[in-house]
Formats: sequence, structure tokens, C-alpha cells
Amino acid sequence: MTGLDQQTASIYAPIQTHLDQVDATLAGLCRNDRPELLPLLDHVLNSGGKRIRPAITLLAAAFYPHDPKNPIIMAAAVELLHLAALIHDDTVDDSDLRRGKATVSNQWGKHVAVLFGDYVFATSATFVCDTDNIRVVRRFSETIMELASGELVEVFNAFDPAQARDMYLDRIYRKTASLFCTSAETGSILGGAPEPQIQALKDYGYNIGMAFQIVDDLLDVHGDAAKLGKPVGADLLQGVLTLPTIMLMERYPDDNPIASLFKDPTQDGKVQEILELIKNAGIIEDCYAIIREYSEKASRCLDILPECDARVSLLKLCDYIWERSR
Amino acid sequence: MTGLDQQTASIYAPIQTHLDQVDATLAGLCRNDRPELLPLLDHVLNSGGKRIRPAITLLAAAFYPHDPKNPIIMAAAVELLHLAALIHDDTVDDSDLRRGKATVSNQWGKHVAVLFGDYVFATSATFVCDTDNIRVVRRFSETIMELASGELVEVFNAFDPAQARDMYLDRIYRKTASLFCTSAETGSILGGAPEPQIQALKDYGYNIGMAFQIVDDLLDVHGDAAKLGKPVGADLLQGVLTLPTIMLMERYPDDNPIASLFKDPTQDGKVQEILELIKNAGIIEDCYAIIREYSEKASRCLDILPECDARVSLLKLCDYIWERSR
Repeated sequence: MTGLDQQTASIYAPIQTHLDQVDATLAGLCRNDRPELLPLLDHVLNSGGKRIRPAITLLAAAFYPHDPKNPIIMAAAVELLHLAALIHDDTVDDSDLRRGKATVSNQWGKHVAVLFGDYVFATSATFVCDTDNIRVVRRFSETIMELASGELVEVFNAFDPAQARDMYLDRIYRKTASLFCTSAETGSILGGAPEPQIQALKDYGYNIGMAFQIVDDLLDVHGDAAKLGKPVGADLLQGVLTLPTIMLMERYPDDNPIASLFKDPTQDGKVQEILELIKNAGIIEDCYAIIREYSEKASRCLDILPECDARVSLLKLCDYIWERSR
Repeated sequence: MTGLDQQTASIYAPIQTHLDQVDATLAGLCRNDRPELLPLLDHVLNSGGKRIRPAITLLAAAFYPHDPKNPIIMAAAVELLHLAALIHDDTVDDSDLRRGKATVSNQWGKHVAVLFGDYVFATSATFVCDTDNIRVVRRFSETIMELASGELVEVFNAFDPAQARDMYLDRIYRKTASLFCTSAETGSILGGAPEPQIQALKDYGYNIGMAFQIVDDLLDVHGDAAKLGKPVGADLLQGVLTLPTIMLMERYPDDNPIASLFKDPTQDGKVQEILELIKNAGIIEDCYAIIREYSEKASRCLDILPECDARVSLLKLCDYIWERSR
């Protein structure tokens, strides 16, 4: 087991038996579904994700006495929604590999990937209906809207250097933090939390989700290509602005190296030059500081929640996300 | 006004004011939504559909006293779901035009079309949540699964002549009749119909939906290319079996002209030859007979419903769908 694996095992410990039931629920799809879809479902469900979102749902549910049935279904739905979004994102981004395995669009073609993504989205929604809780169903549908609109704005704004930090924060809320938010919020609703505690867990999800995405952004300029499974600078090559690149633009308003790259993305060595500039300008450290801020805000959201193992795990999760970036 | 337009106006008359509110609800999206999405929403909402599905929802709701608010929201959701499915279908089918207008994938690219389709799917689901009726939300999600799996099977089975009639019927139920079914069923649930009448309207939707798709199939082998806005034989060229082509295979089990086409789709004049064979073998008439059967079954489903204007309209709709094919 790697260090990070050991860490998630310890974070997931209070809800591990429920998380196993989430996996069993998802595996059940492969037994009951239409035969044509089995190879696709099998491929997607066994692609080795860390199950962070369903774990958040289960941990957020674990503060008050409740029947675990609904949080387990909800956690399965949250993971399915995440997988559906990945299927479409990989299709849109022309990605060949995800976690070292062929993407659905690579293996079965884009047409199948579009329709199969729709199918997985819809399956996740029927799971949520099984909770019989319309508030939760509504949050779930709104989250799909946010995910899709966040990704759309990313496509629309590609190679446009005229994006300020607030646009960036709104975009990453929608494409990433929204689902973390909803994972925590729906877990706490279905776990029977009182309203102020629901709000606190929702805010926890928001802050940890923002931190999660900025860590991803940092890894793109600073990570290990082999560990990432994609080249460093991939976002820049796709014309996508991230926090480090926006900070660089803020420092060089007049002689903006990103604008120069976006004007002619074929320039040899330009991406490398930008990555060096980011490192030398102390931007990596500034990003760490912002990640730490979100992570600390997430921790403080838990102040009003009862002390218990789930609370300890959610606090540890803040550190875990932070450490992913080091 | 054309003959068909006059006919729909008369069919829609009992619910025209509610149908106008459906249009107003949909147009409201263009006022309230994110600015980046407005040109896309405007494009899709003003593409001149006949609004048959929302009309069915409203007519199915009109038999018993009820607050029209929920059926109107539901009808808007049903139309949005149909539009979302068209966005993805056109993307998957590489279609450049729909009703004489550029498709979303043609005008904005496939990547935007995938994500915008997701957005419209999710928007339709949030509409359904506004009915606060979890039974209806569940049927709606299941319908998206059926639509996607129907389209997937069509892609998987393209250019495979080993498809029997029962596979075909299952496929067109999923890709077309399912949404007609759900339009009628959810309308009747939200309109306060008793359970046997809900079942009857659901069966009506099933039968009229099956008739609708077989009419489409017939138009593909027998229609007017100018009126269709696509070449005759388009399904065959895409390797999609329809009722007329399946019937042709049933008549020539040993010397199957479709299998020969699918083996080498580039053969000059082969599609034309097959279309001639279909006409000369009396298959068009046999298809008409099957459409009439579904249409009569749909009419009979209404026997247990109270006599009223809505019932007259639903009966007229059976004739209307039938006459589209002549």
C-alpha cells in the first residue's frame, strides 16, 4: 500500500463497510443491466477511482443516527455521476487514457461515449430517486447543470487570456467543487442532520472541492508526468487557464506570456518557458497558501458538528487533499 | 397554414393556452440563464418543432379537475428532454441539418454539443423536480436511460443484418415510444387521474409512439426527400434497420439484399435497388397495416376515459400520425 492509500484507508475506516456496499451496489449494475452495456459498465466501474466523493457523502451522513440505506444509494449515485462526467469530459478533451486505461471514447468511439455517458448520467439520477427525497433529487439535477455549464465555459473560453480570477473561481466551482458540495450536502440531509449542520457540511464540501481543483491545477504545472499519466502543462496546451497561469498574468499585465502563447500555441519551448516563470515567480508557494486557506476554511466548517470518528476523518481528508499536491 | 398545421391547431385547441405557457416557460430559460448559453438555448428552442410530446402531456392531464401548474412544467420538461436527445443524436449521427437549420454540433462543434446536451438534459430534470412528485421524476430518469440505451443499441447494431423484428420493436420502443409513453403517463399522474386511467394513457402513449416511429421508418424508404430534409434511404446508408428493411429480409431469407449491402455499403445503386424491391414486394402496404394496428390500439386505450375535448383530441392525434405517412 502506498502512503496515500494507507491514508485513505484510515480516513474511510468509519464508513468502510458502507463504502463496500456502495461498491456492491455499483457492481450490481453489471449483473442486472442490458447485456450490450456490460463491457462498458465493467470498464468504467473498475477504473480504479479513489471514491472520494461517495466517502464524503457517507461521512457527512455519519453524524446522527439514521438508516444507512439512503446515504449508501446516494453515495453510489454521486460516484456514477462523477464517472458519467468523466466519460463526456474525456470525449470532449480527446483524451486517450484515464488512470492508465483507455477512455471509453478511445476504446468504443466518441459516438458510443456520448450515448453511454447519457446512460450513466440517467442511471445515477434513478439511484437518487430511490432515496424518495425530492430535495436531494433537485440538488443532484442542479449539480449536473453546474458541471456541464462549467465544462462549457471552459470550452468557450479556451485560448482566451481575458479571464480574471473571479471567472476562474466560478468555473472551478461549477466543474469540480459543486459535486463535492452536493456529495456532502445530500449525505447530511439523508443522514438526518439539522439544517445548520447541513449548511456547514455543504460549505465544507465547497471548500474542500475548491482546494481539490487548485491542487489539480498545481499538479499540471508542477507535478510528475509519470504519476499524473499526462504531460505537465496539458491545461496550457489545451488553452485552459488555471490558478497558477492566472497569477502569472496578474504579475505581468503588460508583457503577458500566456497571451503570447495563446496567440500562437505552436511556439517551440513556450510552455516550458511559462512553467519556469511560474516556478521562479514564487507562484507555486502562493497557490499552496490559497489551497491551505480553503482547506482551513473546510476544517472550520466542522466546528459546529458533534465530535465523532466521521468528523476526525473529514478533518484528515483536508490534509490528504493538501498532501496530494506536495 | 398547411393541412397538417390546421390539423394540429384543432388537436391542440383544448390545451392551447397551456401549451402557450409551456412555450413561455421554455422562453423564460433564455432570459434567466447564463449569458454564454443564450445563443445556444435560443437556437434550440426556436427550431420549429411541433410540440407533439408536450401536447400529449397536457391532453393526458386534461381529463380530471387539477391545478394546471404541474402538467405545464412537466410538458416543458418533456419537450426539453426531447431537444436534449436531438442535440446528442445529431452529434452522434454527424447530422448537419435539422428542420433545415444547422444542428448544434454543426454550428458550435461536437464538443459544445455534447456538453450543451448534458446541460439541457439536466435542466429538464430540474423542471420535473418542480412538480415535487418523485414518481414522475423516476419515470423521467428511466426514460432518459431508455432513450440512451435505444440509441446505443442502434449504434452497436449498425450494419448487422442479424436483427429480428422483436429486437427492432424493443429498440424503437426505447428510442421513441418510451418518451411518448412517459409524456402521457406523467401528464395523467399530475392531472390527478385514477390508476387504471393512468395505465390506459400510458398504453396510449406506447402505441402512438410505436406508430410514430414506424411512420418515420416508412418515410425514410418512401418519403419526399425535399419534405424530409434528408435523402431517402438515409437509415440504410447509416446501417440502421427499420421495419420495411426487416420485412424485406424476412421475405428473402436466403438471398438477403440488405446483408449484401451491409457487407459492402459502397455498391453503386444498391440502396435504390433495395428501395424498389420494398415497393414492389407490397411492404409499404404491410407497414401501413401495422401502423394502423398500433393507431387503433392507441384509440381503444381511451375507451375507459371520460368523454371530453381532450379525448377527442387524443383520438384525432392517432389519425394525424397516420396521415403524416401518406
